Amino acid sequence: MGAAQRLASGDALAPPLAPRQRASLTAYRRTRAITVGLVDGLSAEDCLVQSMPDASPIKWHLAHLTWFFETFVLEPALGARFVPFDAAFRTLFNSYYVGAGARHPRTERGLISRPSLETVFAYRRAIDAQVERLLVDEALSPELCDRIELGLHHEHQHQELIVTDLKHHLWKNPSMPIYRRVPSKADFATTAPLHFVERPEGIAQIGAPGAGFAFDNERPRHRVWLAPFALASRLVTCGEYLDFISDGGYARPELWLSDGWDACVREAWQAPLYWQRDQDAWTMFTLHGSAPLEADEPVSHVSYYEAEAYARWANARLPTEAEWECVAESAFPDAVAAGNFFDDQLFQPRSANPAPADRVQQLFGDVWEWTQSAYLPYPGFRTAAGAVGEYNGKFMINQMVLRGGSCATPRDQIRSSYRNFFPPQARWQFSGIRLAHDA
Amino acid sequence: MGAAQRLASGDALAPPLAPRQRASLTAYRRTRAITVGLVDGLSAEDCLVQSMPDASPIKWHLAHLTWFFETFVLEPALGARFVPFDAAFRTLFNSYYVGAGARHPRTERGLISRPSLETVFAYRRAIDAQVERLLVDEALSPELCDRIELGLHHEHQHQELIVTDLKHHLWKNPSMPIYRRVPSKADFATTAPLHFVERPEGIAQIGAPGAGFAFDNERPRHRVWLAPFALASRLVTCGEYLDFISDGGYARPELWLSDGWDACVREAWQAPLYWQRDQDAWTMFTLHGSAPLEADEPVSHVSYYEAEAYARWANARLPTEAEWECVAESAFPDAVAAGNFFDDQLFQPRSANPAPADRVQQLFGDVWEWTQSAYLPYPGFRTAAGAVGEYNGKFMINQMVLRGGSCATPRDQIRSSYRNFFPPQARWQFSGIRLAHDA
Amino acid sequence: MGAAQRLASGDALAPPLAPRQRASLTAYRRTRAITVGLVDGLSAEDCLVQSMPDASPIKWHLAHLTWFFETFVLEPALGARFVPFDAAFRTLFNSYYVGAGARHPRTERGLISRPSLETVFAYRRAIDAQVERLLVDEALSPELCDRIELGLHHEHQHQELIVTDLKHHLWKNPSMPIYRRVPSKADFATTAPLHFVERPEGIAQIGAPGAGFAFDNERPRHRVWLAPFALASRLVTCGEYLDFISDGGYARPELWLSDGWDACVREAWQAPLYWQRDQDAWTMFTLHGSAPLEADEPVSHVSYYEAEAYARWANARLPTEAEWECVAESAFPDAVAAGNFFDDQLFQPRSANPAPADRVQQLFGDVWEWTQSAYLPYPGFRTAAGAVGEYNGKFMINQMVLRGGSCATPRDQIRSSYRNFFPPQARWQFSGIRLAHDA
Amino acid sequence: MGAAQRLASGDALAPPLAPRQRASLTAYRRTRAITVGLVDGLSAEDCLVQSMPDASPIKWHLAHLTWFFETFVLEPALGARFVPFDAAFRTLFNSYYVGAGARHPRTERGLISRPSLETVFAYRRAIDAQVERLLVDEALSPELCDRIELGLHHEHQHQELIVTDLKHHLWKNPSMPIYRRVPSKADFATTAPLHFVERPEGIAQIGAPGAGFAFDNERPRHRVWLAPFALASRLVTCGEYLDFISDGGYARPELWLSDGWDACVREAWQAPLYWQRDQDAWTMFTLHGSAPLEADEPVSHVSYYEAEAYARWANARLPTEAEWECVAESAFPDAVAAGNFFDDQLFQPRSANPAPADRVQQLFGDVWEWTQSAYLPYPGFRTAAGAVGEYNGKFMINQMVLRGGSCATPRDQIRSSYRNFFPPQARWQFSGIRLAHDA
Repeated sequence: MGAAQRLASGDALAPPLAPRQRASLTAYRRTRAITVGLVDGLSAEDCLVQSMPDASPIKWHLAHLTWFFETFVLEPALGARFVPFDAAFRTLFNSYYVGAGARHPRTERGLISRPSLETVFAYRRAIDAQVERLLVDEALSPELCDRIELGLHHEHQHQELIVTDLKHHLWKNPSMPIYRRVPSKADFATTAPLHFVERPEGIAQIGAPGAGFAFDNERPRHRVWLAPFALASRLVTCGEYLDFISDGGYARPELWLSDGWDACVREAWQAPLYWQRDQDAWTMFTLHGSAPLEADEPVSHVSYYEAEAYARWANARLPTEAEWECVAESAFPDAVAAGNFFDDQLFQPRSANPAPADRVQQLFGDVWEWTQSAYLPYPGFRTAAGAVGEYNGKFMINQMVLRGGSCATPRDQIRSSYRNFFPPQARWQFSGIRLAHDA
Repeated sequence: MGAAQRLASGDALAPPLAPRQRASLTAYRRTRAITVGLVDGLSAEDCLVQSMPDASPIKWHLAHLTWFFETFVLEPALGARFVPFDAAFRTLFNSYYVGAGARHPRTERGLISRPSLETVFAYRRAIDAQVERLLVDEALSPELCDRIELGLHHEHQHQELIVTDLKHHLWKNPSMPIYRRVPSKADFATTAPLHFVERPEGIAQIGAPGAGFAFDNERPRHRVWLAPFALASRLVTCGEYLDFISDGGYARPELWLSDGWDACVREAWQAPLYWQRDQDAWTMFTLHGSAPLEADEPVSHVSYYEAEAYARWANARLPTEAEWECVAESAFPDAVAAGNFFDDQLFQPRSANPAPADRVQQLFGDVWEWTQSAYLPYPGFRTAAGAVGEYNGKFMINQMVLRGGSCATPRDQIRSSYRNFFPPQARWQFSGIRLAHDA
Repeated sequence: MGAAQRLASGDALAPPLAPRQRASLTAYRRTRAITVGLVDGLSAEDCLVQSMPDASPIKWHLAHLTWFFETFVLEPALGARFVPFDAAFRTLFNSYYVGAGARHPRTERGLISRPSLETVFAYRRAIDAQVERLLVDEALSPELCDRIELGLHHEHQHQELIVTDLKHHLWKNPSMPIYRRVPSKADFATTAPLHFVERPEGIAQIGAPGAGFAFDNERPRHRVWLAPFALASRLVTCGEYLDFISDGGYARPELWLSDGWDACVREAWQAPLYWQRDQDAWTMFTLHGSAPLEADEPVSHVSYYEAEAYARWANARLPTEAEWECVAESAFPDAVAAGNFFDDQLFQPRSANPAPADRVQQLFGDVWEWTQSAYLPYPGFRTAAGAVGEYNGKFMINQMVLRGGSCATPRDQIRSSYRNFFPPQARWQFSGIRLAHDA
Repeated sequence: MGAAQRLASGDALAPPLAPRQRASLTAYRRTRAITVGLVDGLSAEDCLVQSMPDASPIKWHLAHLTWFFETFVLEPALGARFVPFDAAFRTLFNSYYVGAGARHPRTERGLISRPSLETVFAYRRAIDAQVERLLVDEALSPELCDRIELGLHHEHQHQELIVTDLKHHLWKNPSMPIYRRVPSKADFATTAPLHFVERPEGIAQIGAPGAGFAFDNERPRHRVWLAPFALASRLVTCGEYLDFISDGGYARPELWLSDGWDACVREAWQAPLYWQRDQDAWTMFTLHGSAPLEADEPVSHVSYYEAEAYARWANARLPTEAEWECVAESAFPDAVAAGNFFDDQLFQPRSANPAPADRVQQLFGDVWEWTQSAYLPYPGFRTAAGAVGEYNGKFMINQMVLRGGSCATPRDQIRSSYRNFFPPQARWQFSGIRLAHDA
């Protein structure tokens, strides 16, 4: 009786799986299936488009996620037994791992009509079968189990990118197609008034603790000194952002960083990405199609430059990542459970409910929150050896940290120590604004 | 009994079709079917890719060709009865006709995953049904018959573009896929030696005569004075072009026009497009896949700059379009019948057979022949009124004339007066070299 | 007694100069002095600026003109005796002669603060002394005499470029400095009404005859067939061009070539270069400073694209160079004598006086007239051997021919066969419009 | 007796100057004279060149420094009495102060041949006279005294830029001119071996204290937590950097940040700026001309990307700015007095002498030291009101902090809290490398 049969039957005679491998197998199946589920309702054509260099075709995401397991799990696990599914895929679906060999040019991912989407699914199935067989049949080293865990977190990250890249692609189509029908709006509440919650000065600790999964860039956990500060009780809303626009926010260079103003002029920004003014009314492109602007919703799809200018206009500033994490850590994990994530399939931020005055809301989910911290290594940061070491470290320049996850982030992905990062001009992620000020 | 039934049954009781409309109907069905046949073996993904701004996705070609009949035939013919298939398509599939309304940006044609290829075929069928009904049921004005004829010649042109754009797209894929299996090479002959055929000075006439279809840019027929000249008896071969490369052709600026040398350096040209040197052997990408270079085949995929530099190196020059046409007119139409065209489905030039010394071979088919004539209006040239007037006239700058058609040109398309035109740096067409010199 | 002394004293005992060398010496001194005179009133700083890649610093022009004689006259004449003034200048002041060695990048000519302007003048004087000694002391071959003549015509061409490059440079300065004080306007007359003068069809000859100086691109003289045509009796005026603007000329793509419309949008053209609208009045930057627009003056500083669009708007077309030359040849040389040239130091076109109905006015001087002829080799054209062969031939692509000279062209420079050429988007020359139509 | 006379005679009867104004006057005269002294040996042409967008012409620096006092001191001090020297200069010489009105485009500073250098000196003299009169005749508010002090520190900064911009300009000239003759090399010692000096963890304070001049970006002084670390005892030398090059430093992407590798490839970096390999020997362009590479000299003219890659290759890292400042503060001010600065007129870093093992050398002068800290606001940072508030704050993005000053930095300029900042790709400053590691 082969592994495949055991997999199917859960045969009691099979040697018992180690608990970690059993958990990995479950997580692997669930996570991989979620990715495939994203393609529901999309055609092979939909999955081929690359609407800008920053985005990738869904087909590419699907293949790259499989490439990751093939390259970083199967190849080291199988050694001499390893046979690639297709030698050409090793190059075609390598994203940026110089240590893993050649790469196809990023800007040409949308030209790859072959392999077809169908073949890419076959690739997924073939690699899945091998990974699952590995988990069932072989006693894996802790390193390999770590790699599988890393691969699943990697898959979470690309699930979010599939959503945001698709949103951009659909928006570039003049017909602005609908990805998912809009859900009932019953749970949209009136937004709570904004106030600031203070926190005294002192030494704090940030970063992921030793146990549990975290990316290398979240470690090591370390001490920081925090001056007294206050954090806004909720996210900035579209309605508040409209006030900034009405007050000439996009026409007053004194509110902007110098590079930000240059970007604003060069890109002719007049509002967040996906906003459109039709006569006197504003509409917003969403994954439910075009919709009227909701004043109570958190503003999204703003660059760091816009977030920073908004904060200056509001006589406030953005929080540092350390300030944010200290507050968020105490709210974790309940606030994650209550948050608006990928798993909720809304794919759009929602307004904050009224809440007690000492509560800081919306820390997790809805929109990524720009911080005024540059994306840099923590004291004592070390990259892993080999190509996997390229995962995070080599991007630590010219980017700002965002925290808290968005409505497109899988809930399992987020932690209070999780560091997302994008260049200050990026707008296609669900990125929004939380204010802070010195206490 | 409706037109559709009559179409199907050829019902004898129906009012007889005027001969011109009958011929149009036949030509319409045949030409439109040929376009669809080009998609055989291609997927929806294959039809979506735009591999460079100069090229278009096949799906876009298919839709645009239908848009042409909808806009320039159905809309004027039906007047108030006209209902567009989809209002959005009027913009989406307009190529460059400013007079026909807004246009979707050319560089973003590859982002249009919706409408799907399937919908585009439905669009074709729906418009075809209406055009055919028109031809069967209504007595059309000569102007409308002219428009249908224009539309079919337009369709021929795009059939060629589908072939050349697809070739570029497949070549950009690292796996260099095969479009059509290579045919038997039995009919590849040894190339005849090159010599020059002289022609005395005198007044000649060039341009299309009054009767028969021709594009506006071929008219009016007019007199030119020709100094004595000599035209090469056949096209330059790959083997001869290799001698140019071996002699440092791509490293000697003195052989090139100044702009040509700039392009050569900027684009790092070392050989014609699609050629590749592997160790000591040269291969060539073709629509049959990658293949060893055939020394006897006409060289193809060279820019005007390369053609012009080759001619200087060979102590010759390129012919003018008037010189070419005078010689070609006397070979027409027999040389067309014997030529290697789209209809032969080889999609690759082939070598010239030995021939009598006074014969100028390969004037038609195989490769377009760069002339040293800029693409400019003939004396007395007039554009048509309305958006159709934009067909040719507005491109009469910064382009050079090519003559004779290629292995991707439909045979019905070509005439001795036919003027093709491309910018001097273009290389993705089947463009080659015929030499000339002053006598 | 040395040559230098003889030069100074005109010593009667010296061997008599051959007539051609005597004429050369006179022309050399006069032409070289005129170039130096252009610098009157300019500082070393004024002579260093390169305001765009198409233009060059005056200091560079001064040095390059000397480099030309050093390289193409002194070096071949002196052979082993030749010692360069400064070896670095051989590269620094070579414009585009690949055959004459390396070249300093064109776009970096404005960075050359050293050698100083003073040193460049010393360079001029040193080379002048050697060339003059050559003309006085040695019996030169006809080839060398030809080279000197070529060098002087080359100097004429750069005299014009000094004027047009300086105009662009001064205009880029917000204070719009004045180069030369405006002369009395007494001789500005009312412009004559425009009419067309017809010419029957027939064989004509164009190109420079065998005798007398002409550039290689004007030869060989050859026959052309001309269809009947009519040429406008004068240039298009600023007032007429304002009507084109008022009629939406810069907002109607149907009037433009496709590439022209792209340039118009990309460069945000709203009027000719140097025009500015202040409230309701138009002003024009001239070498006399900023001035109100003169309705009767010929319009200038338009690109080919604008000239061509204007002609279409006016239900006319631009002439071909052959049409222009046939008419101009019969007016030569009287019309040159009467024209408004560099020698008149007005540096601004002037209005046409009333004239007999059969007279075609302003053929020479005022503004270069765009023709609809691409700049291509005449039948039988041959370039000279060596680096001098690069003078004209290698630019025969992507440019259009202009005829007749401008108010910045030295009178000695112009002939009815003279072919000037610029890319269709160029506007910084004094380039204007003459209409034509088919008769 | 007027102020001018009193200035000249120091007349004892004049009302006594307040001590701060007396000190200001002395500093003003000294600092302004130093700037003028930089032009010794340079021509008006030398002062006009802008060799790249990042650099400015010396004439522009000279005028802008005067504009600063005119705009930020004279205009507010004189109020209604204020008359600008030349209204056009208000725009022409405004660098980036949006709040101070319009600005001439930065990239076109090299086109401004007028005003002449002479006029710019007259401008300096006129404003100097007014500022000095103000200091002598009027009792200035503390705010105005602060502005003058700011203006002098601003002048220091531009003195350094004049040196670095001139170095780039001279290097672009193929003749690589010499700015200052090389001094005697007697004081070039053998470089001390490199070791690391450790420092325990703890809370530290960084930033400028309340008293004394500092730029707004150095304040407020605040607490930080520092993990234990070790700082290199001296700068990295050219010899050590050569080892990095020999070991493939410029060919191994795994050593680089991702953006850094892109820059390396795009700009074809093979060595620091101004290095050149001639056969097997390396030379370096300096302000003394081209010279052999000195192995013991600190490496200079490296970007952050190169510094960071070097550190990774050396199994170390760059220090943070807080680490650097903590160590430097204890060495201040003696290490400044001993450092190699602008005032020493060497304009080239020099090797470190042997020193005690616990000494960290070369903290001040020689080369700016890249830190791994992004240039961001300190906790509690506030910009000043008005246009002066644009001085530093609006550049707090996309730049990295450098510390310690260079051989082109005026000694009076530097403090242990001084924060310089440049984009990570900048190389034309004297920027070098100090290593650090976690203890």
